[in-house]
Amino acid sequence: MHEAIEDLLADYAEAIDDGALERWPGFFAEDGEYQIITRESHEAGLPVGIMYCGSRGMMEDRVQALRTANIYEPHTYRHLLARPRIQRSAEGFAVRSNLCVFRIAQDGETVVFATGRYLDRIVEDGAALRFRSRQVVLDSRRIDILLVLPL
Amino acid sequence: MHEAIEDLLADYAEAIDDGALERWPGFFAEDGEYQIITRESHEAGLPVGIMYCGSRGMMEDRVQALRTANIYEPHTYRHLLARPRIQRSAEGFAVRSNLCVFRIAQDGETVVFATGRYLDRIVEDGAALRFRSRQVVLDSRRIDILLVLPL
Amino acid sequence: MHEAIEDLLADYAEAIDDGALERWPGFFAEDGEYQIITRESHEAGLPVGIMYCGSRGMMEDRVQALRTANIYEPHTYRHLLARPRIQRSAEGFAVRSNLCVFRIAQDGETVVFATGRYLDRIVEDGAALRFRSRQVVLDSRRIDILLVLPL
Repeated sequence: MHEAIEDLLADYAEAIDDGALERWPGFFAEDGEYQIITRESHEAGLPVGIMYCGSRGMMEDRVQALRTANIYEPHTYRHLLARPRIQRSAEGFAVRSNLCVFRIAQDGETVVFATGRYLDRIVEDGAALRFRSRQVVLDSRRIDILLVLPL
Repeated sequence: MHEAIEDLLADYAEAIDDGALERWPGFFAEDGEYQIITRESHEAGLPVGIMYCGSRGMMEDRVQALRTANIYEPHTYRHLLARPRIQRSAEGFAVRSNLCVFRIAQDGETVVFATGRYLDRIVEDGAALRFRSRQVVLDSRRIDILLVLPL
Repeated sequence: MHEAIEDLLADYAEAIDDGALERWPGFFAEDGEYQIITRESHEAGLPVGIMYCGSRGMMEDRVQALRTANIYEPHTYRHLLARPRIQRSAEGFAVRSNLCVFRIAQDGETVVFATGRYLDRIVEDGAALRFRSRQVVLDSRRIDILLVLPL
C-alpha cells in the first residue's frame, strides 16, 4: 500500500506540473476537501485558509474559472516531495510529506515558491486511492498574489 | 526492480555531484542517448536540444574535453530527485522523475540552477541497468552559459 | 530494513522542522556523534567542523542552551531529502542521502539555506535504529551566522 500511496502523491504532482488541471478534482473523493493554510494559522488552530474547496464540484468550478478568466500571468510549477510518512487510521491513511514547489515564469525566472507539508487523509474509494482531505501547510506567512493554481 | 531503478538514478546523481565525471558514460548503453532540452522545445516537438550525445563514445569525448580545456568557472551540483514513476515498456522501462539541481560556485554561492524532469528509457544491459536514453526536460527557457557539466 | 531506515531519516527531519528539538538527541546512540562540516574540509580530511557533539549528553546540553539563551532570530527549517543509498557495514549500515534545507524567517522570507549530503552510520540499538554517527557535509563554504539549530 505504501507504494500505491507514493504513486498517488507523485501522480498528483505530475498532473499539476504538467498543467493538466482538469485531472486535479479526480484525485479527491466526491466530498473531499482541499485547503491551503499557513503554518501559523494551522498551529493556532485557526480554520481560515488561503484557498478552500469542500467538494470535487467546487474544485471543478475553480479549474473552470482558471481556464476561462485566464487573468493570471502564465507560469508553471515543479513539485519536489520528500518520502511520505504513512500511518493507518480508522478510515484509511494519515499521510504527511515535506514539499517544495518551484514556480517558473514564462520568461524562465525560477523561484522557490512554497515550502511546507502536505497533511493528507487518504481513503480507498472503490478501486482507487483518493484524498478524503488534503491540507497544504505553508511554512511562510508571505502569501504570493500569484497563488491561483492549486499546489 | 523498482528499487534497482531508484538506485541507478541515485547513483547517477551521486557521480555527477561528486565530480566523478568519468563514471558518467558508464550509466548509458553503448549506443545510449543523452539530451538536455527545454520544456518549450519538448512540447513543440522540436528536436533541438541544448546538449546532445548520441553514444557512450561522444560522452567520453565530452568528459575528456571538460577535463582538458577546463575553461569553466569551477562549481559543483547537488541533485534532488523526487520519487520516480516507472512503467514497463516493450524494451525495458519508461521512467519519469522530477528534479531540482542546485549549483554551488567556488565562493560558496548556491542557486537553484535547474528544475525539470528526467524522461528515461532504461534497459537491462547484461547484468546492469543502463540508460537507453535520458532526456532532461528543463522548465526554464533561460539557459545558463555555465551549463557545461551534464545534469 | 530499507523502509525502516528511510522512516528514521524522515522522522529526524520532521522533528527538526517541527521545532521539536528535545527529540533530537534521542535519534542518536548514547555515544553517538554529530558533526556539520564543509565539503572542502571533508575532502581535505580536516576534522574541524562547524558544529560537533560527541555524545547524546552534549546534544541535550546544546538543546538546553538554545531553549534558554534564545539569542537567535526565530526561524524554521524545511528539509527535503533524496532517496538514501544504503550499504550494510560490519556494525550496521552506511547511509548517504542528498539534502536541501530551506530556512523560513519569521517574516516569511524563504531561502535555500544549505545543500549537501548526510553521511550516516546507523546501528540497531535495542529495538530502535539510531545514528552511531551523522555527518552533514555542506556543499558551500559560506557558513551562515544563523547556523544555530542542528540540520
